[in-house]
Amino acid sequence: MSGRTRTPYDVPFSTLTGVQPTRPERAPGGHARRRDLLRGALRAAGLDALLVTDLVNVRYLTGFTGSNAALLVHAGDDADRGEDRTVLATDGRYTTQAAAQTPDLPVLVQRAVGPALLGAAAGAIGFDSAHVTVDGHAELAAALTDGELRRAPGLVEALRAVKDAGEVDALRQACAAADAALAGVIADGGLRAGRSEREVARDLEERMREAGAEGPSFETIVAAGAHAAIPHHSPTDAPLADGDLLTMDFGALVDGYHSDMTRTTIVGAPAEWQRDLHDLVAEAAAAGRAALAPGVATRDVDAAARDVITAAGFGEQFVHGLGHGVGLVIHEAPAVSATATATLEAGMTVTVEPGVYLAGRGGVRIEDTLLVTEDGAVPLTQSPRDLVHESRDET
Amino acid sequence: MSGRTRTPYDVPFSTLTGVQPTRPERAPGGHARRRDLLRGALRAAGLDALLVTDLVNVRYLTGFTGSNAALLVHAGDDADRGEDRTVLATDGRYTTQAAAQTPDLPVLVQRAVGPALLGAAAGAIGFDSAHVTVDGHAELAAALTDGELRRAPGLVEALRAVKDAGEVDALRQACAAADAALAGVIADGGLRAGRSEREVARDLEERMREAGAEGPSFETIVAAGAHAAIPHHSPTDAPLADGDLLTMDFGALVDGYHSDMTRTTIVGAPAEWQRDLHDLVAEAAAAGRAALAPGVATRDVDAAARDVITAAGFGEQFVHGLGHGVGLVIHEAPAVSATATATLEAGMTVTVEPGVYLAGRGGVRIEDTLLVTEDGAVPLTQSPRDLVHESRDET
Repeated sequence: MSGRTRTPYDVPFSTLTGVQPTRPERAPGGHARRRDLLRGALRAAGLDALLVTDLVNVRYLTGFTGSNAALLVHAGDDADRGEDRTVLATDGRYTTQAAAQTPDLPVLVQRAVGPALLGAAAGAIGFDSAHVTVDGHAELAAALTDGELRRAPGLVEALRAVKDAGEVDALRQACAAADAALAGVIADGGLRAGRSEREVARDLEERMREAGAEGPSFETIVAAGAHAAIPHHSPTDAPLADGDLLTMDFGALVDGYHSDMTRTTIVGAPAEWQRDLHDLVAEAAAAGRAALAPGVATRDVDAAARDVITAAGFGEQFVHGLGHGVGLVIHEAPAVSATATATLEAGMTVTVEPGVYLAGRGGVRIEDTLLVTEDGAVPLTQSPRDLVHESRDET
Repeated sequence: MSGRTRTPYDVPFSTLTGVQPTRPERAPGGHARRRDLLRGALRAAGLDALLVTDLVNVRYLTGFTGSNAALLVHAGDDADRGEDRTVLATDGRYTTQAAAQTPDLPVLVQRAVGPALLGAAAGAIGFDSAHVTVDGHAELAAALTDGELRRAPGLVEALRAVKDAGEVDALRQACAAADAALAGVIADGGLRAGRSEREVARDLEERMREAGAEGPSFETIVAAGAHAAIPHHSPTDAPLADGDLLTMDFGALVDGYHSDMTRTTIVGAPAEWQRDLHDLVAEAAAAGRAALAPGVATRDVDAAARDVITAAGFGEQFVHGLGHGVGLVIHEAPAVSATATATLEAGMTVTVEPGVYLAGRGGVRIEDTLLVTEDGAVPLTQSPRDLVHESRDET
């Protein structure tokens, strides 16, 4: 039930990059560097330390993937001077794994990881109020003898939003696995009438694994016909039928990083309304992608795509935000929606996924995962966005 | 990313069981009956209503499986008199799905589901402080104009701990799918030297699907050799080798219900220490299973198994609790551990899973999912617990 266990530390020292002269960075992923960046954010927030309790954030900052862990990071440490008092807490199931994954950190073995770390803490201790529950907060407060708990939501998520080179590489691989799976399914005529939504979903998932993925990055959505009007429809045994719009929303997981892509295609030949609807959503998606650039408010990206759909009279049928950040979690910062407050930076990876849903008839959604760069957005998912595909059978 | 979508309401009225004379129960799963039971718990806790925000609890009480939802249940309603003011809130992505899954409930369509439901609430409103975050609580408090929020953790979980007949049936099927998968892998010689942990995991997962599962109920654990000393090891490309202890911890998902089973076997022929270790853990597991009965404190069940291992000198190497409840979530109430405070009731489904882990050498864990009945415990997982299995190749 824990994440995938890896021991990325058994590489020759000479191959490591970003090595600190006084304190060798042993994680290729640069976990110590990330903790250093976090310290800057803590000092800016006036905190003496941060208790990190979200497991994805713990993984991001240390490489540890167990299912019970917390981390205490001190604002005053200076990694350049060899100071890093960071302590990882986990329980007895993960002692061996922690030793392998975080050989650079002392490990406190105790079941109640948060309270255990706070026992010796002092000063203004931030906690992630967006993750810590009301009951969890009461336990932390009871454990803190000499200090004060302060709300500090989203500090690690803000760092995670901007990907480093290794993360972009994993995301590229995850996107490529999804592309390869879809290309294979199409080439083998796998989107034909008579097959069930579930069979198509399973087919995509198996091919993503063959293409090197650890698995799907979320429950694969395959929605045919009227089901395509349900944005988050889960595949059933319903058979694909000629004339169905077919929406596939799926992604691959590589080294913990998620890809996310949606394509809507047609089973057989499209009717005119289906072609028009697909054209409209494709135009909105293109407008959204074109709006991506550093310095742009994500709500303006949402508007660029939404305006196209609203102008065509389908604004009420575009029932969700335009997109979201994607990385170690399928939905992460920055939000890309009409109410979002984020601003894009180079290195962010986001989805652009407008959709129009017509109850009882079907729907169209087109989604890509893109990397924001100084020169605009680069699509990491690269499958053709056509409504009509030709399989080998048909050519 | 939502759970599986089902529309269980399109069955003939006459086939439904548990029908109320004045207010037909439309969900075969008895969702309205569950809300009635919950009302009793609310009245006992002095609450006027409960805001249900955990998605699994929402599903349990309504059948709705979308990824954003909340529910407000009123203590004063009387379903026998046709009163049920329960309202489901979800966002625009799930309007169609909510209409199909919860035709008996009014649906409030709004993104901020919890605050939306509290807008019109009054009195003492319970919230699940074990699930609601500190920031989420602040949003709820701001939305409540005429009433007071009170901590009310675990009320729905307490109901969920005791399974009804439909739930037991789903759990039986989930357990049977895991049994069938393991039997198939063994019969086909799939646990042979040279195969990788990952291949075995994939094999088990595919066979569970063939046996009717929606998928694995958690990330399959396959741990060979020294890896078997890591309780939550995730499968790698490491090949199985003769003389390896091989621990497989896996389960199937059927209609949202999880099975959970662990078997430890040997690749090739066992050494004496491996046979002894397996015998010890098997004895502890049997003692744990035998201790299961209504009225027994779960910590006493833990002790029954733990005492066997401690007496043999391996207490320090049994690094986790004995088990846990299992149902719509892989780990749910009741906890079965040395510090647990729960008492068993008939209808609870729990795991019994003692383990001993020897760093660098391997480990043994044996786990079953069991149903507590008035006559003791019935194993729902039924795979042989032997250390040595014979495949068709070898016979």
